Amino acid sequence: MQFDMKRILSPTTAVIPCPVILLSVAGQERPNIITVSWVANVCSRPPTVAVGIRPERHSHELISAAGEFVLNVPTAEQLEATVFCGTKSGRDHDKFEECNLTPLASSQINSPLIAECPINIECRVKETVNLGAHNLVIAEVLAVHIDEALLDSNGNPDLTHLHLFTYIPLTGEYWGLGKPLR
Amino acid sequence: MQFDMKRILSPTTAVIPCPVILLSVAGQERPNIITVSWVANVCSRPPTVAVGIRPERHSHELISAAGEFVLNVPTAEQLEATVFCGTKSGRDHDKFEECNLTPLASSQINSPLIAECPINIECRVKETVNLGAHNLVIAEVLAVHIDEALLDSNGNPDLTHLHLFTYIPLTGEYWGLGKPLR
Repeated sequence: MQFDMKRILSPTTAVIPCPVILLSVAGQERPNIITVSWVANVCSRPPTVAVGIRPERHSHELISAAGEFVLNVPTAEQLEATVFCGTKSGRDHDKFEECNLTPLASSQINSPLIAECPINIECRVKETVNLGAHNLVIAEVLAVHIDEALLDSNGNPDLTHLHLFTYIPLTGEYWGLGKPLR
Repeated sequence: MQFDMKRILSPTTAVIPCPVILLSVAGQERPNIITVSWVANVCSRPPTVAVGIRPERHSHELISAAGEFVLNVPTAEQLEATVFCGTKSGRDHDKFEECNLTPLASSQINSPLIAECPINIECRVKETVNLGAHNLVIAEVLAVHIDEALLDSNGNPDLTHLHLFTYIPLTGEYWGLGKPLR
């Protein structure tokens, strides 16, 4: 494909493709899950992540109170739960129960991880930066869980058979991953 | 796939899949390009991105001086350039020339965009947060360029034929995208 005629769009969030993460967090009444795509690894040492989240979201309140959360990597099998957890509020729904997802105890924090997600990242909040519509929550990674089924005989991750997917905000689509390029 | 036996890894950057972006920035001698994967959309209004970058990198110095940069979305056709720009230093290499990439004038800033990348995001730095090995550079999106070939007859983006790819830090692999899931 040749790209030589550009059109200028109004400023928008156009970094693609984006990760899709199920963020789980402890709550006074019950734990909650929120789907986030404004999320990234941002520092290698100490391993640090950042999550953009609207302050009016129920999970923002829970994260502020708990000071911690888990980032869970879903697979395409959880696409329906991913959409549900991104569009419904934990104020009105028990998302673990309604999505048939299982809370499991974390190793370092009180927020539960999601058993059905093959990779789970326990995080503790370090800093919150207000950016406008979203706050940026910066958090240190305390532990990573990976399913045994994803480790090869040497203990290295092999994700060949995992149905990962990604989000494209420009079109609002979820895309499955294809194959390794090299 | 059933996930029911977890193993705990030491803390690491495990958010996957990650975007892969060619960041271009003006320089006193020549503009430079650096490949970044610690990058995300983080706020919708104003549209804001964040990039994790090591302070000792040449591009960090250029970004600090310029106060701006362009995020360019590459396609699989630019995989070789992506690897080159992520492993060589702009102190020793003219990456535009050596990768056969064409600098084009931006609309709002002095840093050039990369003509061969179908999507280009002009950004102005707002704030830098030191996180440890990486600094987090937070920047507002000023303009987005998209190639005409990616717009349908209604002017909406149609990325069906674009060979996007993503990075998996857990394995160090680049994966091509597959198809929209819904």
